[in-house]
Amino acid sequence: METQFYMPVRVIEGQGCVRAHAGLFADFGRRALIVTGKSSRGNGSLADAEDALRANGQSFAVFDDIPQNPTVECVRKGGEAARKFGAEFVVAIGGGSPMDAAKAIALLARQPGHALFSEEIGPDVLPMVHIPTTAGTGSEVTPYSILTRDDIETKQSISAPSLFPKLAFLDSRYTLHLPQEITVNTAVDAISHAAEGMLSVKAGEASDALAVRALSLLLSEYENLLSGMYSEESRRNLLCGAALAGMVIANTGTSPVHSMGYSLTYHCGIPHGRANGLLLPAFLKRCLQKDERRTRRVFDALGMDADAFARKMEALLGERERFPQETLRAWAEKTAKNKKNCAILFTEQELFEILSASVGK
Amino acid sequence: METQFYMPVRVIEGQGCVRAHAGLFADFGRRALIVTGKSSRGNGSLADAEDALRANGQSFAVFDDIPQNPTVECVRKGGEAARKFGAEFVVAIGGGSPMDAAKAIALLARQPGHALFSEEIGPDVLPMVHIPTTAGTGSEVTPYSILTRDDIETKQSISAPSLFPKLAFLDSRYTLHLPQEITVNTAVDAISHAAEGMLSVKAGEASDALAVRALSLLLSEYENLLSGMYSEESRRNLLCGAALAGMVIANTGTSPVHSMGYSLTYHCGIPHGRANGLLLPAFLKRCLQKDERRTRRVFDALGMDADAFARKMEALLGERERFPQETLRAWAEKTAKNKKNCAILFTEQELFEILSASVGK
Repeated sequence: METQFYMPVRVIEGQGCVRAHAGLFADFGRRALIVTGKSSRGNGSLADAEDALRANGQSFAVFDDIPQNPTVECVRKGGEAARKFGAEFVVAIGGGSPMDAAKAIALLARQPGHALFSEEIGPDVLPMVHIPTTAGTGSEVTPYSILTRDDIETKQSISAPSLFPKLAFLDSRYTLHLPQEITVNTAVDAISHAAEGMLSVKAGEASDALAVRALSLLLSEYENLLSGMYSEESRRNLLCGAALAGMVIANTGTSPVHSMGYSLTYHCGIPHGRANGLLLPAFLKRCLQKDERRTRRVFDALGMDADAFARKMEALLGERERFPQETLRAWAEKTAKNKKNCAILFTEQELFEILSASVGK
Repeated sequence: METQFYMPVRVIEGQGCVRAHAGLFADFGRRALIVTGKSSRGNGSLADAEDALRANGQSFAVFDDIPQNPTVECVRKGGEAARKFGAEFVVAIGGGSPMDAAKAIALLARQPGHALFSEEIGPDVLPMVHIPTTAGTGSEVTPYSILTRDDIETKQSISAPSLFPKLAFLDSRYTLHLPQEITVNTAVDAISHAAEGMLSVKAGEASDALAVRALSLLLSEYENLLSGMYSEESRRNLLCGAALAGMVIANTGTSPVHSMGYSLTYHCGIPHGRANGLLLPAFLKRCLQKDERRTRRVFDALGMDADAFARKMEALLGERERFPQETLRAWAEKTAKNKKNCAILFTEQELFEILSASVGK
């Protein structure tokens, strides 16, 4: 048994950290492409980053044409925008979509003809600074970019050490006014990352340590997630929990929960975090049957048993979406084909049963 | 409150990992200076590294003239050896002394006139691969090099991001036959790192997560540390616990325990880990009086209260060295002068009282 741990992102956490460390942007070049969604204008994050760049005399252009689940087409446009502007680095601001898109854009800016899914990525990628404005994806500390592929009707990730951002700024003030639905869905995504990471063949002492802490931080906010009332401390706990969970999956990868979830998102528009949350309780229950010792550690970290966790997620997610059996069969088949990191192996039939128990009609 | 987390070392852990990943050495250049102590010849580590380098067609020279607590003189000689050989990278194999010396040698190889303690270090340092053969220092994952300064009669550290090794291989087989005294002293050093890190002004969610896990791994071996009987699993727990604790202090720094300990080591030859262990219980007890909430978290992670911890360390360390009051006054004075990372501040008198309670005649 061998494990690896690699987390080369410098993470700075605290209120006002972008402005306080404006000088750090200067290390990456004279011209930045800012990749962001629309909401970064409202939460202060974009203004902080722009002011930091201006303070250093750096030029920047803003590329904010990022859909909810970024497509190959959108990142190719972004790569083109980066080249036209002569960007020497990328500043990603937003939730998972802009942060993931930014990674592919940073790649395509340097390697415009890159095939994305069927080609080694190598080191030639623009350096990146990530500023999350949601607390879920953990993209600011992972080497993954999850893109929507219409050709094979799912989401698929690209990954390389060069896709790790150089620097991540965590300022929970940017998340203070996130809508309740996004807050819950992204928190559930982070919970899923930490739990899935603990079940990975790649899990090691460091990733487990971070996963346990991530679950403790995230679950400590459960009552607030239910009520929709968040203090500044709550927002910080959620943002830090999500970043720790991101450090986990950066090393462990995810599990069939994410693979199955991609189908729910691609075909039915269920938000990514919610999709994982709908599937996670039944998945963990099945894991417990198949490998009690390993799975027990996850429930220990969650601080509850399988039934309690299922009830809590039920209360948080509300009424479930339901799909016919033949749809679930197709999703199970697609998931069974994917390479997994999960230490517990599932047959297509078992995946179908998890889907049925979670979102079956 | 702002925190940072930065841990850019790729850590690979597992039996046989050096040979399994021999190819990774090829990234760093054609000529390596191996910096090591004498015992790496007996535990298999040097042979594994040499074979890995040979397999890549890389040349190497061995510099093994490293005393127990490396001096400025020794690292200057090492830097000269690296330059003479035309080393493009450094492979450090051993305990804290060779690993720390290797960092200063990697610096001096590129910047021969560097003043060490009174000059910025900058990025121009040879890349390093570290292979620990003791489980304590954590040097394989820190940016610190602790050197003995005869001019000011203590140990002092140099530190820079460029002093982080690029790669660390953790193979607990190299620690299987460590003498009992070294095993205990190094384990106690690692316990001290994790505990001190949790009390640092720089402690954050990630460092705390790693500290809690480190303490859990290290304390799970307490009975074996007492009996001197170690399984392979024990050795792995100690090595992983020490590495996690190293990741902690890489981000948090240490506390007055280390500062005071340096005097015990410099003046009286008490091994570094033992010196920390002699001081830690009284230090933590005093911390508890001054900041109960913060210190309680450390005892929670240790899984015991202050008295139980003091008894356990007593049993592990055996009869204490004792020093006259005037000696302790001088050490307290020296410690009070040093800049600290500890969130709990101590007066010179309080430091004297901790020293008195720990090693007073």
